[in-house]
Amino acid sequence: MKPFLHAARTSLSAQIVGATFKLTLHSCRLRVPVKRVACSFRVYSAFTASAPRSYAFQVPKSKKNNSTKMSSATTLKGQPLDRAALESMLRRRMFYTPSFEIYGGVSGLYDYGPPGCALQANIIDLWRKHFVLEEDMLEVDCSVLTPHEVLKTSGHVDKFADWMCKDPENGEILRADHFVEDILESRLKGDKEARGQKVEEKEEDPKKKKKKAKSTAVLLDDAVVKEYEEILAQIDNYNGEQLGELIKKYDLRNPATNRQPEPPVSFNLMFQTSIGPSSNIPGYLRPETAQGQFLNFAKLLEFNTGQMPFASASIGKSYRNEISPRGGLLRVREFLMAEIEHFVDPEGHKKHARFHEVEDIELAFLDRDTQLSGSTAVKKQTIGQAVKEGLVDNETLGYFLARIHLFLKKLGVDQTKIRFRQHMANEMAHYACDCWDAELLTSSGWIECVGCADRSAYDLSVHANKTGAPLVVRAQLDEPKVYEEWEVQIEKKKFGPLFKKNGKTIENAILATPQEELAKLAKELEETGKITVNVPGVADGKVEVSKDLVAVKWVKRVEHTREYTPNVIEPSFGIGRILYSLIEHNYWTRGTEGGDEARGVLSFPPTVAPTKVLIVPLSNNKEFTPTAHKLSQKLRSAGISSRVDDSGASLGKRYSRNDELGTPFGITIDFQTVQDGTITLRERDSTRQVRADEEKILEAIKALVDDKKTWQDIESELPLFVSQEIEVAQR
Amino acid sequence: MKPFLHAARTSLSAQIVGATFKLTLHSCRLRVPVKRVACSFRVYSAFTASAPRSYAFQVPKSKKNNSTKMSSATTLKGQPLDRAALESMLRRRMFYTPSFEIYGGVSGLYDYGPPGCALQANIIDLWRKHFVLEEDMLEVDCSVLTPHEVLKTSGHVDKFADWMCKDPENGEILRADHFVEDILESRLKGDKEARGQKVEEKEEDPKKKKKKAKSTAVLLDDAVVKEYEEILAQIDNYNGEQLGELIKKYDLRNPATNRQPEPPVSFNLMFQTSIGPSSNIPGYLRPETAQGQFLNFAKLLEFNTGQMPFASASIGKSYRNEISPRGGLLRVREFLMAEIEHFVDPEGHKKHARFHEVEDIELAFLDRDTQLSGSTAVKKQTIGQAVKEGLVDNETLGYFLARIHLFLKKLGVDQTKIRFRQHMANEMAHYACDCWDAELLTSSGWIECVGCADRSAYDLSVHANKTGAPLVVRAQLDEPKVYEEWEVQIEKKKFGPLFKKNGKTIENAILATPQEELAKLAKELEETGKITVNVPGVADGKVEVSKDLVAVKWVKRVEHTREYTPNVIEPSFGIGRILYSLIEHNYWTRGTEGGDEARGVLSFPPTVAPTKVLIVPLSNNKEFTPTAHKLSQKLRSAGISSRVDDSGASLGKRYSRNDELGTPFGITIDFQTVQDGTITLRERDSTRQVRADEEKILEAIKALVDDKKTWQDIESELPLFVSQEIEVAQR
Repeated sequence: MKPFLHAARTSLSAQIVGATFKLTLHSCRLRVPVKRVACSFRVYSAFTASAPRSYAFQVPKSKKNNSTKMSSATTLKGQPLDRAALESMLRRRMFYTPSFEIYGGVSGLYDYGPPGCALQANIIDLWRKHFVLEEDMLEVDCSVLTPHEVLKTSGHVDKFADWMCKDPENGEILRADHFVEDILESRLKGDKEARGQKVEEKEEDPKKKKKKAKSTAVLLDDAVVKEYEEILAQIDNYNGEQLGELIKKYDLRNPATNRQPEPPVSFNLMFQTSIGPSSNIPGYLRPETAQGQFLNFAKLLEFNTGQMPFASASIGKSYRNEISPRGGLLRVREFLMAEIEHFVDPEGHKKHARFHEVEDIELAFLDRDTQLSGSTAVKKQTIGQAVKEGLVDNETLGYFLARIHLFLKKLGVDQTKIRFRQHMANEMAHYACDCWDAELLTSSGWIECVGCADRSAYDLSVHANKTGAPLVVRAQLDEPKVYEEWEVQIEKKKFGPLFKKNGKTIENAILATPQEELAKLAKELEETGKITVNVPGVADGKVEVSKDLVAVKWVKRVEHTREYTPNVIEPSFGIGRILYSLIEHNYWTRGTEGGDEARGVLSFPPTVAPTKVLIVPLSNNKEFTPTAHKLSQKLRSAGISSRVDDSGASLGKRYSRNDELGTPFGITIDFQTVQDGTITLRERDSTRQVRADEEKILEAIKALVDDKKTWQDIESELPLFVSQEIEVAQR
Repeated sequence: MKPFLHAARTSLSAQIVGATFKLTLHSCRLRVPVKRVACSFRVYSAFTASAPRSYAFQVPKSKKNNSTKMSSATTLKGQPLDRAALESMLRRRMFYTPSFEIYGGVSGLYDYGPPGCALQANIIDLWRKHFVLEEDMLEVDCSVLTPHEVLKTSGHVDKFADWMCKDPENGEILRADHFVEDILESRLKGDKEARGQKVEEKEEDPKKKKKKAKSTAVLLDDAVVKEYEEILAQIDNYNGEQLGELIKKYDLRNPATNRQPEPPVSFNLMFQTSIGPSSNIPGYLRPETAQGQFLNFAKLLEFNTGQMPFASASIGKSYRNEISPRGGLLRVREFLMAEIEHFVDPEGHKKHARFHEVEDIELAFLDRDTQLSGSTAVKKQTIGQAVKEGLVDNETLGYFLARIHLFLKKLGVDQTKIRFRQHMANEMAHYACDCWDAELLTSSGWIECVGCADRSAYDLSVHANKTGAPLVVRAQLDEPKVYEEWEVQIEKKKFGPLFKKNGKTIENAILATPQEELAKLAKELEETGKITVNVPGVADGKVEVSKDLVAVKWVKRVEHTREYTPNVIEPSFGIGRILYSLIEHNYWTRGTEGGDEARGVLSFPPTVAPTKVLIVPLSNNKEFTPTAHKLSQKLRSAGISSRVDDSGASLGKRYSRNDELGTPFGITIDFQTVQDGTITLRERDSTRQVRADEEKILEAIKALVDDKKTWQDIESELPLFVSQEIEVAQR
């Protein structure tokens, strides 16, 4: 879209990387070799547009590549998507609602109402079947409360932060990068206005109370425009000090007070608390479910009877204390995650036994090189080909990308609004081999909904190093390995009593002797019956040891096992983001004959639809009640969720309400039902109806919900019913 | 068991109630009339043995009534239950494990491993089907993070606390009531020893590191023994000051330091955090899911198209910062709850439309009067009879007790180890009509696993009063109500300009006139053309108003609607407690022929069993692999979870492992399978096997898992297989 902008960003961020690198080294206290530390913490990419600021290899906001998409979002039927209308419908139907609203609400916290809650449960249910059951994964449910030390080791305490600054006058807290971005964007817009160019308006949240930077038509120098554009292109790469310098240099002022904010300070995004009385254990609410899985690795391996590879999985809430959450369900402070940690032997190129089952699946790839060239054009290719060509690093990673794709497809994600974007080299942590995000296109641009990274052995290594726990696999070698070498044997019973307190020091000095020296010692011992060892600090630094105390022998050792730290492939799902994207992808509006306002429809596939069947008695005549209850009972025992709507509203209104709820099927009970036992079945998307006896209709519903038949099949089997639909249209 | 003890407690606690009552009045700042305030906060009974100390009407610890049960716990087959052996098995099979164990662990926090996690998911699944789907409940998923103000209104900020005290020497934090209890109990034990009486040893957790009060044989005066026993009987009723006095009076010392602890201070059990940057919103992790449901009441009512009664439901984690958690899964700091809030019109005796469906179900009741008499004998009675006799307050409450019973039965709870215990009058909050706990008998005594309270209109009222939100129902009256009364009509347009700033005061004075006075005013106005009104502070206190400014008329008013605050029936489930009790109820041990150690079996019903089928190839011969995978695939598509165990272990060992995991069925693949396609099916509890072709066996499994056939049915249909079982038994 804006290739020159993008190119500018890429080259500049390369410079920034070097600068921040040093900072990172200083502030890092992880107990792994320094070389590994530079960016040895998790890349927090999925489910939060906000990623840590304090390190170099920053995730570029994909929305930037796509800001022009914002006003061109479409519904399922290709209509322009009216986000305000959709959100109003979702509130009205209680898909979700701000938490504690009667107390004024808290931003970034939402409650799911009945349809949102059911939709979420159905997504989770499908996830569990598609991943956990299908692959015999070991599901765990770990504590949300997490002590400080664990998250110190993982890197979150030091790195999981954003930069914020305070307005000196009104005390308002601003997220530094967002602030700089807003002001510079408004100046550029003012410049365009002054130049008489067309300015594309971004959609504004009508409820947003904050005073936005307003553009005024002020002409800027061409050089300044270029500077601003370069800054915006790499806004995610600045650290706090650099953001502070930008604020000073360009005199960026908070529109609410016309004051420069104070210098940015780091704000850790974890919610802090203390566990136990008198604050004795400082802790946090976990920012992801992954750590619990890593800490249990040894037990899980044992549960799996020591067999590799295997995967653990976890579904649960995680927490991130966003500075100023916006974007509805897309950036929240409390969210449901589903994460998989697939543990694999790094030897043998991470092959996957079931890769052949998915190799022909075609995905839309947006690879690293394409992004570097400033393009967002996707390449469609089979995953088999992508792994073969080396685009995707290995079979296991490729297998999961394909499985993620299949999962999203089953859910009902629009196939034209999904792409797999590869992380840039400088987005990934150094230890990661490769990382891809499944992004879904929404009215807020491309949103990362699933991350899938090959995290190498990083996580298990840091926890093992910190705690000493053996988070390793001991594998039987197909062919034993044979070593031959010199070995020192100490006669401990005599050694101690003779050398007393110096015994251990002398022993260590002998054991530390390198192989080539040992050969000489062996010869010396054989020839002279004793050896002289250098032991600094004992006697005059030289100690004689006779052959009854020590032996040096040439031995042969056979190793039958190999010990290794497994690598981790981590597919990580943000359920709330998937849920919201799924709603947008399945939303469209239907005109009415009377020319009323367009009515919303959510065309969820039956599998994920919150309720499968609406049962509507024609009126609230008591004659209909027993049939309604009997039907709902029968559906229930077939495992199909239904709701009876016997409110006084008109048939049309009740169907309309349920179209908005995404209920795929509707049953009408009318006076004919009471006479001949037949009922009508309505399909949500076509609004067409068939009529047959109860048994046949229930059979049809079961086949539809189980995805065994299509509505076309049903129409060809059962007689169409038209009179009722006329009533609905007339309303 | 100890009737005199119990009687002593009851009478004493009546005195205490009065004392604490005053305290409560002082500390309470809820905006409800004072008369209502005295104990107007939730009774936090379910899922935590720890209940708030700071108020009067305290939950008596049911374990106290049953301490003698502790050593007489039995397995499913009536064997003495060896809790240490069971716990070791549960750890080994990773049902649950201490969280962060490689970092030393944090008490009160546990992770569920694969079988525990699957068991939990199956319990939740059954709960959702049994309650939410069956009754069309409105399930919601609300935020765990909760701002201060909400929990201030609910009473948690002021009341949800325990008393703790600190050892002045080593800084150890002691829960005051537990401390007093421990020391007095050890002294009584020492007295018994000195008197040469037999002392019953409580089971001790072998891993407990804390120094327990050790008894030494010291004889006490009879009067002192009586005093101690009376204190212990009512230990839950003391407030902090009183506990402090006991510590001083009896010179109670911490065994670890031989020092008296400092005076008790109140410790709020909620985890505190702050939401947003710079700690701008103080908040807590919710201690229960109920508040989110109450706050959404108005939206839920609208979602339900205004119809009453209805219920909301929620499944989610809650948090309580226990001072010193013990008892494994029975008292934890983070736990899963499932709560229902059933909203009902208080008029009409809270009838329930489906009560007739459950009225013949027999429950074991331990009523209030029986407890008062010092007995724990249960009365078996139908719920219909219990409601009719007034034992259970109303149909709706009774309906839920029966539904809870049915749920626990479906789960596989031992029917001889369940009772419904009524709360004592002084246990309940004043507003509650009635409250019953479903208690399950375990090796820790009777554990409250489900609470079911009629909470009247309390919760909705306090939030409505605080926020002004209309948490009410407007119901259409069947017959409109007609009122006739005097009405004042003010001519506002003239009133204001004439009286200027006094206008509103004078208007209010007139409007405040009682009905009987209005009759006189009407007469005065008619006769004199004006009225004289007393308005203190305006002019000389008397104001004349002429008839062009005011009219007083006899009017007729018709009301078509009635406005009321619904009452709430709240069934509240502690999933972790149910899960643990279920494990104990289904545990037993099987002797081996070789006389080895007894092997554990968990006889879960197939519905809740973590895995339904174990697939065991006879050996790790590669010939068996395709069949194993095909079978697992077929089971999966039938929605039945299975696991293949192709580890190198012997068949017997693999079956034994899966008996411990509670897997009800096992399929063996052997050389005959490869030849003729037949497989064997083993039933966990009897260890008997049948052999048939794949299709028949899969059919049998489906029927067994769906509870359509019993194992006896299968044995009568398919040929028994014996040779394999000999192999297993021989091991």
